[in-house]
Amino acid sequence: MKAPVFLLFHPILLLVPFMNIDKSKNFSEWYNEIIKEAGLCDLRYNIKGFIVIMPWAMKSINQIYDIYERELQRRGHSPAFFPSLVPEKAFLAEKEHVEGFTPEVMWVTEAGNKKLEERYALKPTGETSIYPMYALWVNGLSDLPVKIYQRGWVWRYETKATKPFVRGREFLWIEAHDVFATNPQARAQVVEDISIAKEAVWKTLGIPFIFFRRPQWDKFAGADDTFAADTLMPDGKVLQIATTHLLGQHFSRAYGIKYMNESNDAVHAWQTCYGPGISRIYAASVAVHGDNKGMVLPFCIAPVQAVIIPIMRKGGDGKVLEAAKTLLKNLSKAVRAEIDLSDQTPGFKFNRWEQRGVPMRIEIGERDLADESAILVTRDDGKKRSVKLSEIEIEIPKEGARLDARLMEKSSKLFRDALDSARNEEEMARKVDAGKMVEVPFCSEEKDGEGCAKAIKEKHSIDVRGTICSFFDSDEVTLEAKPPKAEKCVHCGKPAKARMYVSRQY
Amino acid sequence: MKAPVFLLFHPILLLVPFMNIDKSKNFSEWYNEIIKEAGLCDLRYNIKGFIVIMPWAMKSINQIYDIYERELQRRGHSPAFFPSLVPEKAFLAEKEHVEGFTPEVMWVTEAGNKKLEERYALKPTGETSIYPMYALWVNGLSDLPVKIYQRGWVWRYETKATKPFVRGREFLWIEAHDVFATNPQARAQVVEDISIAKEAVWKTLGIPFIFFRRPQWDKFAGADDTFAADTLMPDGKVLQIATTHLLGQHFSRAYGIKYMNESNDAVHAWQTCYGPGISRIYAASVAVHGDNKGMVLPFCIAPVQAVIIPIMRKGGDGKVLEAAKTLLKNLSKAVRAEIDLSDQTPGFKFNRWEQRGVPMRIEIGERDLADESAILVTRDDGKKRSVKLSEIEIEIPKEGARLDARLMEKSSKLFRDALDSARNEEEMARKVDAGKMVEVPFCSEEKDGEGCAKAIKEKHSIDVRGTICSFFDSDEVTLEAKPPKAEKCVHCGKPAKARMYVSRQY
Repeated sequence: MKAPVFLLFHPILLLVPFMNIDKSKNFSEWYNEIIKEAGLCDLRYNIKGFIVIMPWAMKSINQIYDIYERELQRRGHSPAFFPSLVPEKAFLAEKEHVEGFTPEVMWVTEAGNKKLEERYALKPTGETSIYPMYALWVNGLSDLPVKIYQRGWVWRYETKATKPFVRGREFLWIEAHDVFATNPQARAQVVEDISIAKEAVWKTLGIPFIFFRRPQWDKFAGADDTFAADTLMPDGKVLQIATTHLLGQHFSRAYGIKYMNESNDAVHAWQTCYGPGISRIYAASVAVHGDNKGMVLPFCIAPVQAVIIPIMRKGGDGKVLEAAKTLLKNLSKAVRAEIDLSDQTPGFKFNRWEQRGVPMRIEIGERDLADESAILVTRDDGKKRSVKLSEIEIEIPKEGARLDARLMEKSSKLFRDALDSARNEEEMARKVDAGKMVEVPFCSEEKDGEGCAKAIKEKHSIDVRGTICSFFDSDEVTLEAKPPKAEKCVHCGKPAKARMYVSRQY
Repeated sequence: MKAPVFLLFHPILLLVPFMNIDKSKNFSEWYNEIIKEAGLCDLRYNIKGFIVIMPWAMKSINQIYDIYERELQRRGHSPAFFPSLVPEKAFLAEKEHVEGFTPEVMWVTEAGNKKLEERYALKPTGETSIYPMYALWVNGLSDLPVKIYQRGWVWRYETKATKPFVRGREFLWIEAHDVFATNPQARAQVVEDISIAKEAVWKTLGIPFIFFRRPQWDKFAGADDTFAADTLMPDGKVLQIATTHLLGQHFSRAYGIKYMNESNDAVHAWQTCYGPGISRIYAASVAVHGDNKGMVLPFCIAPVQAVIIPIMRKGGDGKVLEAAKTLLKNLSKAVRAEIDLSDQTPGFKFNRWEQRGVPMRIEIGERDLADESAILVTRDDGKKRSVKLSEIEIEIPKEGARLDARLMEKSSKLFRDALDSARNEEEMARKVDAGKMVEVPFCSEEKDGEGCAKAIKEKHSIDVRGTICSFFDSDEVTLEAKPPKAEKCVHCGKPAKARMYVSRQY
């Protein structure tokens, strides 16, 4: 007795997607829908800006942590743990830093229902908890460099609108804090940080970005210079996914991080800090790779890399089930595999796993079994092919690498296509409206350029992101771009001392 | 030209240990010294009870996390992330829980220098942040079981004396929170939790323990029953390293976690929660396996599993160095290896790496090289043997497994030897004074036994730990021990309804 064909391949079961939103036309709605439908997070926690991250997202986020930590360790960083609370006194040591962060700090003031003698800040970033320790640890040249990172979360009482994984009052990241004897060593670290991002975010996850040097009015509070990676969301707005800061000697002076140099003088050290936003990188991965059917997960971070769906007729003899279970056992040695034995139709299951972004679907039915094979369907292109059961264990990881390569090809093309340039304000605004990141001549990236930036922001809601340091897929890194020749600022018309990218932003 | 023998094997260089404290005689001093000398944490952070965990410890702690998470996942648990802050209203829902934890809660009351409308608790444990979500997630039988864990840290404003990795106001752990349809399913989870601890803590890390059912007066605030693993520190005091609680329906009633059963009635679910203390497990591993020379790290969690020390004469021809570097490269494929090229004498290096507990030391000098071999020294027994360079890559992991097995043999013997029993209060106190965990007949593990427990605590500083559920190395698990026959309580002399272990505690 054969399974009725209509049950297995009925067009309605196969073609009705759970989602019905065009990502390219209505990204925001698509993003909110995917978060709900794929079970990525729950927004119903009773504090604004605090979200619950659910297993399907958390598993991928943990993979991203692993990828990033591996890269940091490969370049000589070690993990450590610094407290979440910072005594108010320590928090107030570096003036610019305090001014920048105080409006967003949450304070612990009571314990066991008694008022504390001193307030403790819930750290919005680690500098103020880490650097007092570095002052104790760094004494001589032999103590340098310090290269330490912490995996964890921090708290910022954001006043801007929050968005799951993109902006919240509690967010998951890594922060690396490095100390060097000299400024050139610190600058070399920034170049290394950029290269780590390329390895983890581009080469592994297929998310394209540009590393910008932020204009002086938009740098990290307490830094000499800020460099930041912006990726592009499908609606043409950029998302900052990592920053690295040249801190100079601001903090080493404030916290007394000094070493004895060869001439026995106590001199202040040079510092950098690096903050990849792990949940933002996850958000970018969902947004960049997804399609109208739902998520498309890179193979390397998929919680389930291959799902086996046995196609069984009712009252079948169990051979298919048995073969599917054997396949799961073998496959689990090589990849993260699962079998869907739920009480649903195959079409329902196909849609469900497609929506959740599982890279490979393996269908196994009676006819396939007779041929000692199964049908392998790749999530990104929907292509089907028959694979011998004996070869699946070897084929899936290979196919996974090919899928990741296809995602990179697609995302880099989209990203490159979105880059443009303009010579005047009208052209700039028109192109940004069309979803582009636009390079323009700009009067200055120093403080005196802030007026033009503010005017552009006010008139067009367009942000000045900075000068280019490095593209995701290039080995070239320039911490200080050369000024353009004979061009005029798009806004004020004065001679342009910089070429800067502008765009809308998250 | 040969290297002068005195330089390589001078007894002073080899025999002077950095530490000079007898662990078995003065454990507390030994522990403080090892924490400082091996660089495990820094106690100079400016908030009492908050410590900075340094890389050498953090790397092992991350390994312990990995081990535990792997075991949890193998039994169907998934990771998730719940916020660190709990709105006061949610915090107050379960009465007993609130009473138990309120004295230790730290409160966030201000943000951006404005007073908040509602206080937020820094969670001392996750129930109150997690269960309101479970109430939303659990509706029908198909939503059950829920098996979710979170890796992270929580805050308790302890009034007891703090001790690094053992008791702090911020501590690293995992908490798993499970929901079931029935009480027997919840009880089966407790049995599974005990078995996960055996896998992770005993079979992997070689730390022996007994899982006790805690007396009713010492259970988790809001639980029906608490089961806890106690290990034994070298000073004869026990350390609780994991707990699992039968929560019954206390929290499901307080938070409204209900499902529709087959008869379409909305019924309250049954819950368990499980909290392995990751930093405590690390403390136990340092304390149990260490010796008078310093740490002895189990191979599986050692940040450096094998250190290569080239023995070079000054102005040597570099062949030894070259061979050592090649060895490092090959070895790094199989294990976490490092080479010590610092400007110190071999003896200094030997001591340094011994103190930090590195399981394998590989010495390679001219004579070894001529023989195409190296000297392998195992940290726990100090034994040396010559190994062919071509075989080291295969030998080290095997030797690592043998070292872990030796640690288990030694620790289980010590643990078993420390167990004893007593028939009366005087005998009990004498044996506890001698560093034993002592089993005694006790009037009752119910509320009416609390009087005797308090009297014993007051007179002897001895704590009643509970009735035995399971030994680390046995497959037997009894959630409810049988009452003893014809014995009398060591304190009040009434007929004993329980046999309970007593000891001093951390």
